[in-house]
Parts: sequence; structure tokens; C-alpha cells
Amino acid sequence: MFNFTFHNPVKIVFGKDTIKELPNLIDPDEKILLLYGQGSIKRYGVYDQVLKALKGYKIVEFPGVEANPEYETCMKAVEVVHKEKINFLLSVGGGSVLDATKFVAAAAVYDGKDPWDFVAGNPKAKIKGALPLGDVLTLPATGSEMNTNSVISRASIGEKRAFSSSYIYPRFSILDPMTTMTLPERQMINGIVDTFVHVMEQYLTYDVYAPLQDRFAEGILLTLVQEAPKVIKDPKNYNVRANLMWASTLALNGLIGKGVPGDWATHMIGHELTALHGLDHAQTLAIVLPAVLKHQKEQKVTKLMKYARNVWGVTDKAEPETINAAINRTVTFFNSIGMPTQLSDYKLTPKDCQPCVEKLKKRGSKLGEHENITYKEVAEILELAA
Amino acid sequence: MFNFTFHNPVKIVFGKDTIKELPNLIDPDEKILLLYGQGSIKRYGVYDQVLKALKGYKIVEFPGVEANPEYETCMKAVEVVHKEKINFLLSVGGGSVLDATKFVAAAAVYDGKDPWDFVAGNPKAKIKGALPLGDVLTLPATGSEMNTNSVISRASIGEKRAFSSSYIYPRFSILDPMTTMTLPERQMINGIVDTFVHVMEQYLTYDVYAPLQDRFAEGILLTLVQEAPKVIKDPKNYNVRANLMWASTLALNGLIGKGVPGDWATHMIGHELTALHGLDHAQTLAIVLPAVLKHQKEQKVTKLMKYARNVWGVTDKAEPETINAAINRTVTFFNSIGMPTQLSDYKLTPKDCQPCVEKLKKRGSKLGEHENITYKEVAEILELAA
Repeated sequence: MFNFTFHNPVKIVFGKDTIKELPNLIDPDEKILLLYGQGSIKRYGVYDQVLKALKGYKIVEFPGVEANPEYETCMKAVEVVHKEKINFLLSVGGGSVLDATKFVAAAAVYDGKDPWDFVAGNPKAKIKGALPLGDVLTLPATGSEMNTNSVISRASIGEKRAFSSSYIYPRFSILDPMTTMTLPERQMINGIVDTFVHVMEQYLTYDVYAPLQDRFAEGILLTLVQEAPKVIKDPKNYNVRANLMWASTLALNGLIGKGVPGDWATHMIGHELTALHGLDHAQTLAIVLPAVLKHQKEQKVTKLMKYARNVWGVTDKAEPETINAAINRTVTFFNSIGMPTQLSDYKLTPKDCQPCVEKLKKRGSKLGEHENITYKEVAEILELAA
Repeated sequence: MFNFTFHNPVKIVFGKDTIKELPNLIDPDEKILLLYGQGSIKRYGVYDQVLKALKGYKIVEFPGVEANPEYETCMKAVEVVHKEKINFLLSVGGGSVLDATKFVAAAAVYDGKDPWDFVAGNPKAKIKGALPLGDVLTLPATGSEMNTNSVISRASIGEKRAFSSSYIYPRFSILDPMTTMTLPERQMINGIVDTFVHVMEQYLTYDVYAPLQDRFAEGILLTLVQEAPKVIKDPKNYNVRANLMWASTLALNGLIGKGVPGDWATHMIGHELTALHGLDHAQTLAIVLPAVLKHQKEQKVTKLMKYARNVWGVTDKAEPETINAAINRTVTFFNSIGMPTQLSDYKLTPKDCQPCVEKLKKRGSKLGEHENITYKEVAEILELAA
């Protein structure tokens, strides 16, 4: 096992009717910027619950945060923060609104020239603080509610980049599974696939003899495999919603990745596909993951065998067949819940994705737990995903 | 799943040679009370590593904290805190030293008459603050390094009681598995059994359809079953030590118990056996757990079946045989690592334990996840443990 530090101070308030806890979580003197998306929180009552809970608070609203939140949108929110002297940010929505909120929190007190610098990973751009933030989560997927990550897009230059800072941990996250009842099926499935791949990025690498981390990872994967068909068949089942919501938080709150290597090649390639072709984040992951596993079979052999055995119950085959079976079962699982897994499903070819390869080449990216996936290997992976 | 709040801000610093991180974790202006036990940290170099790391700090030492830390000992430490104007407490040792440190942290700033009141659960005795504390853990067992609990004994009145407060979370816990290499085998085995039972208290109750919590619990149990024989056969294996250490922390940091019922009858009865007969904490748990499972078979049937299947792989038998097999496998596991499971192994009879029953009767205790275990059922459980 590797050495590690684990420090996750986010307060999770989980369960039915927990939005009313907001006044116990935000000081009454705070002036709040309430960030949300395209209005679904108004259609399904979440907005009303939040305003009712925060009656008497000074609130300024910032609606209109888009999926794959845009740098330009976020910078407008930063302006509002300054103009209105906001001192607390409240995100109400999914991971996109929350990621935007995290960016705004850091950008509002950033002492450098352009906050895009810390998003793009300019080594001189250091986040040294952030406004306090909290969230009411309505879409289980990104894990953003209990981690230090944020992903911001900048369409004008075709970029989608992730950054991280301990300053952008939410002070609290309210997770009420009831808020997910009205999600479109596509978003729920996206969330399940996103969660699944978050786990795979931390589990399916090389073995450092950390069986407990592996068991936890497998536990999340098995829960997803078990609960995903149920949420489609029986979408009003509260417990199924609750299990999926808690699984998505634990998949990316840092815990299962502690002491073990991380891959993240699938995410890095996926971000490029979203930036270039506008595919949903989870759609890109479902395309790229199986191809990465096929391409990196040799490097990942021990973990692929473990995955086959402990997640898919494949124990009766020789090694190459076992590994192929595990990858095929992954594909079949995604397909079974309505998630395509090939570029062609979106009428795309590897050639259409060449600009992604070029961008990774230009950036000198070395992806994967062995940093052995350069732009050349990415091109091969995209061929496998055709 | 039940509603829950989860908030665990402890910073874990895990791995080889991490004691040297202390100066990054404690402000140089703090005046530190260094609490430790009977001197084993001096024999095995931990003390030297701590003092070297904290060179230049103002340190007052408080040695001599005993296993099952005593109220009287702790109160002497509180006196030192006041006299020496201590503002940071550092525990170096196992769960006993740490529990004492937690008590001292709360007692030092307690505004009531007698800190024993909050230990004994007097409803008027409220902990409203505590001195900051941190720890270097040398014995994986209690989970105290990442939770709000402390257990304090008071031999003069035959009491051993647990209390809890979010104020006594350690600021940090340094977990260097190397420090466990020199532990006597008995202490290592005690830690494994303690960890196992911590998980069972949160897992083996009734089913509220929280499969992820169950998978995590099973993951810890399976890790213990896998690693325990290895630490006996190959005691110098760093990774085995590391896996056991991380397992013991995750068994009782609050995570696996969130959203599900808790039992804790085994611990409550066990505390009484230690207070009365001086048995090690883990020895009492190994005696009481199988008896509680036998006694509460009907209430726990669903989870016992799940435990049999997912932890012990028992799938081929009818229900009563499956449950018996699971309980027997638990006993066999404890015995296989040298842990006895019956009162008679310590030359005790249920009659010898009658004062425990009387004490629980006097206290009006109702134990277990259904609060259906009164002093009468405790007497029956002790008969089953004969």
C-alpha cells in the first residue's frame, strides 16, 4: 500500500426532507449567492423548498449554469459576487452547478490575473483560498459534493479541464434522494455510468496489495450493477435512489483511491471528446473505458482477473478468456441500461476524434497509472472504440 | 436506508515514516502535553521519533496511562494541563492512551462540577468544547483515531463507560504501520477481534436495504479473515500490517454505520465483564458476540443469512444450518487466531458474572438494535457463553 493523507471535512446531510436543515448549516448573517441551472429545480419543487428553508436570509440568485459549466458563465457569477458583496455560495443542482460554484468560490478571491490559469493547470497559478460554499445535490454522479474537484469548460477555445483544491471542499452537502425522483432517465443512467467509471479509475490499475480498498471499490460496483436495473424498472423506489446517491458520493470522495494508484486516462480522453463533440460526460466514459481496458490488458492483468472474479463472478475460464469476459460484461452492463459504448453509436469515427489526439500531443499528456498512454496510444484506444 | 449526518474531519496521515510529519500538523507555538502508556513506545523507538520530529516544541510529558484508562489517572493529567497551561494534547500509543487524551481534552475545559458526569451519561452534563488533540497510533484496534468516542474506567466504583462528542475528534492521526511491528501477538489479535466486532455491531442487525453499507462491512470482515492468519505467520510483512491498521480505522470511523441500525449489545456487556473481571476488551467481545448472535437469531435472521453467504461462503444449507454455520465459523475464526470464546476459558461461570447483570438491571439498560435485551436477556446470553 502507498502512503497517503486523507482529510475530508465535508458534512453530509443525507435523507428524505433534509433540505429544511439549511438554516442549521448557514449562518443567518451570510449573504448568499444561490446558483442553479436551467430551471428544473423550479419545476420539481426543490427551489421552493430551498427558499422556504432560507426565509429571512439575504439571497441573490444566479440561474442559468449549463451542463459542462462555462468559464464565461462562471466569470459573470464572480462579478455578481463582488458587486453584491456575497460571502456564501449555495449550489442547488447537479455536479455541473456545483463545479461552477467551486470555481466561483476560488475565482472570487483569486489574486492572480486570470482564474483560467488555475483551471488550465498553469504551475504558477495557485489557489490560496475560496469563499465558503455548500450545496443541495439533485443529481448523483460526479461526487463533487464530497471532494475537491471541479471541471470547467471554455467552448471558445475548445477546452474542458479539471482542477482541484482543498479550499473548494463544500462546507456541507445536502443529499435528499427524493430530489432525484424526477430526473430524466438519461441523466440517472449518466450518473450510474459516471459513478461506475470513477470507481474503475481507482480500482482497475495495478495491484499494490490493498485488499480493503479493492473490496470497497468492488462493493460500489456491485451495488451499481444491482441497483441500476431497479431504478429503471421501479423509478419511484426511494431506497434504490438512496443507494445510488450514496454510492456516487463514496465513489469519488477520495476514500477508495487512498493508498492505491489512479488511472484517469478514461476521464482525460473523455473530457476531450465532450469538448470537441458535445457528448455527455458519461457517454464519453462508456465509449473510452472498454477501449482503455482492452488496450492496457497486459498492464492491468492482475486487477482485470480480480474484477472478473469479484464483480462478475467469472471464475471458470482461462486468463485471456476471463479478461475478455470481464470487459464484455462491462459493455453489456452499460448497454443493458441504455448506454451506448462505441463512437459509431454517435455516428463518429476515430478520424473525427483526431483533434483530441492532436490536443493531447500538444499538451504532452502522459495518461494512465503508468503514464504510458501518450497521444499515440490515445489514437489506438480511439480505434478500439470505433 | 435511514436518514443520517456524516461529518468526519480527522486528517489521517498514513504510512511508513510519517511520524516526521508532526511539525506540519502542530503549530510551533503550542505547548504540548505528550501522553503515553507504560513505556513500550520508548523500547521500540516511537518515542525517539516523536521527540526528534517535535524538536524545539514546548513539551510536558504525561506517561503511565494504563490499558482501560482510569478516571483518576486522567484527572491527574487534567491538573497538569491547567498547571502547565497546555494548549495541545498529543497521544502516542494505542486506543487506551488516545481515549484518555480525549477525556482530558474535554475535562480540561469542562464547566460542570465533575467530568465523570459526562462519562456516566448524566443528561445534564454537556461537553461544550475540548482542547485540540492529535495522535500517533501504535495499536490498530479501537478506531478511536478517527471517531468521537472514548471509553474510561473507574475501578473504585467498578465502572467502565463510553462517551462521545464531536469536540474530541482528533485534529490528526498519524498511522505508521511500522509502529505495530513490535506489538505482542496478543495485542495484535485483540485488535483484530475488536475490529471484527466493531463491524458486526453495525452490520449484523436488521436489514434496511442499504447494500453498500453491507458491502463495505463485509469488505472489512473479509479483509480481517484474510489478513489475520498472515500477520501471525509473517509478522514482519508491512502490507499485512498496513491493511489491518486501515481496516481497524474504517471499522469505526462512523462510515459503515451511517443509514443503518446499530447493535452494541456485545460492547455494553463486554465493558461490564472487563470492569468486573479485568478481561481484555477484545477477550470479552469474543465471548459475548457469538452468544448474542445465538440469542438474537430470530431478530437477525436476514443479516445472518447474508453474513453466512457473503463472508463465509455458506450457500448450500437450509436456513437454520446456514445460520449455525455462520456463527460457528465466527467462533472457529476467533479460536484459530488464538482467541478463546467462552467464559470457561477464563475459569469463569455465568454465576461469576451475575454482578454485571445486576448493574445493567439497576441502570435499566435496554440493549441491541431493538432495545429488547434487558438484564434478563443478558443473563441468558451469559449462559450461552458459558
